[in-house]
This record gives sequence, structure tokens and C-alpha cells, in this order.
Amino acid sequence: MAAFVVSNLINVRYLTGFTGSNAAVLIDAEDPGLDRICTDGRYLTQVARQVPDLEAVIERNCPPALIEQARSAGRTRIGFESDTMTVAAHHGLSERFADAGIELIGISGLVQELRAVKDAHEIALLRAACAIGDAALARIIADGVIRAGATEREVARALEWAMYRLGADGIAFETIVAAGANSAVPHHRPTDAALADGDLVKIDFGAVYAGYHSDMTRTLVLNRAADWQRELYELVATAQAAGRAALRPGADLRAVDAAARDVIDAAGHGERYVHGLGHGVGLEIHEAPGIGKLAAGTLPCGAAVTVEPGVYLPGCGGVRIEDTLVVTDGEPDLLTATDKTFTVI
Amino acid sequence: MAAFVVSNLINVRYLTGFTGSNAAVLIDAEDPGLDRICTDGRYLTQVARQVPDLEAVIERNCPPALIEQARSAGRTRIGFESDTMTVAAHHGLSERFADAGIELIGISGLVQELRAVKDAHEIALLRAACAIGDAALARIIADGVIRAGATEREVARALEWAMYRLGADGIAFETIVAAGANSAVPHHRPTDAALADGDLVKIDFGAVYAGYHSDMTRTLVLNRAADWQRELYELVATAQAAGRAALRPGADLRAVDAAARDVIDAAGHGERYVHGLGHGVGLEIHEAPGIGKLAAGTLPCGAAVTVEPGVYLPGCGGVRIEDTLVVTDGEPDLLTATDKTFTVI
Repeated sequence: MAAFVVSNLINVRYLTGFTGSNAAVLIDAEDPGLDRICTDGRYLTQVARQVPDLEAVIERNCPPALIEQARSAGRTRIGFESDTMTVAAHHGLSERFADAGIELIGISGLVQELRAVKDAHEIALLRAACAIGDAALARIIADGVIRAGATEREVARALEWAMYRLGADGIAFETIVAAGANSAVPHHRPTDAALADGDLVKIDFGAVYAGYHSDMTRTLVLNRAADWQRELYELVATAQAAGRAALRPGADLRAVDAAARDVIDAAGHGERYVHGLGHGVGLEIHEAPGIGKLAAGTLPCGAAVTVEPGVYLPGCGGVRIEDTLVVTDGEPDLLTATDKTFTVI
Repeated sequence: MAAFVVSNLINVRYLTGFTGSNAAVLIDAEDPGLDRICTDGRYLTQVARQVPDLEAVIERNCPPALIEQARSAGRTRIGFESDTMTVAAHHGLSERFADAGIELIGISGLVQELRAVKDAHEIALLRAACAIGDAALARIIADGVIRAGATEREVARALEWAMYRLGADGIAFETIVAAGANSAVPHHRPTDAALADGDLVKIDFGAVYAGYHSDMTRTLVLNRAADWQRELYELVATAQAAGRAALRPGADLRAVDAAARDVIDAAGHGERYVHGLGHGVGLEIHEAPGIGKLAAGTLPCGAAVTVEPGVYLPGCGGVRIEDTLVVTDGEPDLLTATDKTFTVI
């Protein structure tokens, strides 16, 4: 007689809709009547509102409280999320339940695998999040925010403010605005450095809408472009198109990564492309499946993923181009619609 | 011969200043020359800039890479952070290093305990973060943002925007603006509900400045106050003052919690105060020490903590009053300066 305790908060949200900061869910293998959600007293009202269909256990430390529920119903084999539970928390559970005849069984990535395939409702929310990103970038470009003299921080804040005004619930991750040599730092944090004519300006950002994240990168050039910038851009754009074209249901994840990487390798810039091609996106900004050189497995139909190759020339500048797409039976569904042609702004 | 692998990213930042999203640090018990930081290729430039004094190992999966470094230097006993490392990650390390004669030793809360005591530089950053919060709230009040007809979301966004304009690097946590009956939900998320005359308006928010978080809650009444609102406010204010007065070096954490809780219990509202008194604040919004009924230990001098009792009357409204303070040899140092007298706005 087995049950499963889900303690990863994103998985809890996925399964129940609960958005509090402390929770776990008990899923019984045989009797749905034993299913429970646990959270603490701060969320008494919220859990009743968000999860009316599950009986709530109100305790601070949820996994032991739920295991106790399962034990009292005669369950002896209890699965737990070994990719979420810490060694210390597991040690505590082992000490508490060892004498009660409970066997704890580590399970990894199960709910994450379910989450990798989006249903129509989730795709609609991702599409809305991506549309906010597109509209926000268009807005700040129309408003002349991206100009020589503006600081990276100012551009980042204006973009975030535009996303909020367009209905975002939050910012998907720390917005990256990286100008000039800073664009060669893949995950640069915006500084008070001012944008200057001739700079590559790399902007990587996203919105959260109803819990779902968008993710897009565009790289522009300010006022006048050098040949090396144009060539670098065309190389990355070609690689990115190859990566997008490789998004087919059942495709080997490493083969998808290679489709884009081979283009950059062939141009002699393989060493300057220091990350994977992309990642799943949904309730988390980074989720399954990861698309990289060391990825294992294949791309499921319905996966929402980014395709984001980049080439970074230290001291000079870098280009990254990133879209969010959904894998379908036909062409991948492009959720980020902002133009990708080389743009001098 | 022992070494310690720190894989909690906040602890890594505390020890080294590195702010990337993937890293770990190796600290040798005897030879500082063996100390290393590990991160992946995305952060090659950043790690050199932020951590010039430590040799960097560039690998995707940092803990095994650092244990390998320690092993090759003859270390056999390797500490790891058992309150950060997942059961699955630990299982992977055990499998990889079992035959290499490596003993993995779980260590919990060690760096967090160091972090609980702030030095003068950290206190200055916390003070700056709190000052941004004070000024932002004053700004939106002066601008008439908190008015009947405004939505919770609009108030939250205006407050966040004000913090950014005042120099915040980020928002400390999801801003809470809860009006009317929503104020009875301790961790309410702002909705499109409009503020109305006679509403309690609970605002819990903070800024991030150079990595350090501020945390403050104020509860106001819109236009006209009822007697029950005034009485509830005075009760919570009295409890909060008692909690602040109990902040002494060496004080038992449960006694600090009780100092405020006893006031609310005596008024018959103990059941409506559903959370602890406060928490440490620093590089994380919630860190050691926790101040609650089940807390263990004492308050160190130099701890930065919140004091935030609340009483929540479901369906009617709630009041929470929260400050961030630093424990000193004398009076606690109040970092959040916004007035706490009952305010009808």
C-alpha cells in the first residue's frame, strides 16, 4: 500500500493550483479519498479558496504531517521527491518513521516529466506571457528608451514596467540588458553603464502571467553597425533557425542542440558558445526538458522550450537570439513574435 | 584531512561575492591554497570579475567537480550542506565517490549561522534597503496612489516602481497589498479588487539593495475608521512594541515570540495570530534566526530580524505591523522608520 508525498512547491502548484510558500500534497496510489494538501496557518483562507476539492492538513512541517496521515491509513511505502527533499529533511523523516515500519522511497522528476508536456490551457497562458514580452519590447523601442546615454538599468526597469502595465503578474527572471563589451557576458546584470553608439545591446527578459513564464532574447545595434557585428549576428541567427527547425516530436535532445551548435562550430566560434541551446519553460523559467550537449532523452510533443544560441567575444561583445516555442506535430508554434532580422536602432 | 563543499548559492554569495545561478565553493580545513570556486561556462567572465582571489573550476555540476579537486589533494572527509543538497544529488555523489574512499559528512546551518550576525557593511546595506522602502511608501502616499477606486495591483506596482526609482536592485518578495476582507489573508496576492472607503489596507513589501532585503508592513485605513479597526490596530501595535522591546542579545527566541504573543493571547485573539513573530533578514528575505513558538536558541547580537505580529479576522480584515531591526547591546536599531501610529489616509 503506497502513497506519494509531493513537496516541490511548483509541483504542488501544478497539481493543485495552490500558490503559497509552504505546502505538500499526499497522493494515494489507490484511494483518492486519502489525498490531502498540507500548508500552515498563514494560508488557511487561501488553501480553502484555491484548493476546495482537497482536505487540508494545517501544519508547519508538511512532509511528516502527510506521512503521518498515510501511516494512520495503513500505508507503509511512501514515495518522496528525492530531487527536492534535502538530505537533512530526509534524515529527520527517517528518524521519525523508522520504528513505525515506514519505507521511504526516493522518486525523481516524476511530476516534472508530466509538466514538460503542456496542455492547451497552459499553452494559452504561455502565449499570453510571451505576447506581453513582445508588446513591452515594442513599447520601449517606440518610446525611444533604447538610446545612447540611457543606462542598462534604465532600459531594464522601463521594460519591466512596460510588462507590468501590459498585465504581467511578475518578472520571469532578473532582466538582462547588456551593452557593448558587457554583451559578451552571457548573464550580465544591468549596471549604470550608459549605452553608446555602435554598441551591441543584448536584452534577455520575460514576463510571468498566471504563473507561466515567457523568455526571449534580442540583440540590437545602436545607431551604427560594424561588419563584425553584422556577421556575428547572421551566424547566430542561422544557428538559431537551425535549432528551431530541429524541434520535432521525438527528436533526440542532443541532436537538437547539435543542429544549432554545428553551425557555430563550423564558423570556428564553438569555444565562444558556452551554454546549452535551450530549456523547457512553464511554471518555472528553467524546467524539463533541457536541450544541451549532455542532455538525455527526446523532445515530447507539447513541450514548451527556448532556442537560444549565443556567441560571446570577451572584451568586444556578444549576440544571443532566443525564442520560446511549443513542439507540435507540424511546425513548432513560435510564441515570441518579435522580429529577428538584424536591427540597427 | 577534511574539506567542506558549500553549494547553497546564497552561502556562496556570502562567502565570495559571486552572484551567478550555478556555483559551489570548496573550503579546505588546513590549506587555503586549495580553496576553489566552481561555476559553469556562462559565468567565466563574471567569476573572474567578482571572485578574483579564488581559483575557478569551470564545470556544470559543481559539487562532484570540487570533491574531485579535494580528493586529488588527498582529502578523504568531505563536508557538504545537508540542508541544501537533495537526496538525489547526494545519492549521485555517494555512487561516484564510494569506491574512492571518500566519506561525505552532512553539515547543516553552519554558514547560515555566520550569516545571522551582520557586520557593519551588511547593516549599512540593510539600512539602505529599508530607507528605500520608507521613501517609496512615503512617495506613493504623497502621490495619492492609495485611494478608493485604486486596485490592489495598481498600488503594488506603484510601490515597486517607486522602489526601483529610488535605487532598488529588485523587489524583496511578492509585494502584498490587501484591502478590506483580503487583509485577513496573511499572504494575500494583489488582485484587481478596488480599495474602498473604510477598508483596512495592509501593505507588506521590501526592496533589495546590493543583495540585502528590507521588509516592512504597514496597515492603514482608508478615509474612515471603525472602532473595531482602531482597537485591533492598537492591540497589534502594543504587541509589536513588546516584541521589539524583547530584542536583546542572548534572549531566548521563544521568549521574544512570547513577549508579543502574550499580548494578543490576553486579548483573546491568539487563534487569529497564525504565524511566528519574525525572521532574520539579509541576503535572503527569510533567514536565521526564526522567531516563533517552536524556535530553538537565542538571539545573537548583530542579528537583523523582523518583528511582525498580526491578527486576522476572516471575512472582516486584518492588521499586521512589521519592522526590520538590528539587535545591539542597547536599544535595537530600527531600520524601518515609517511612522506606526494609527493612520487614516
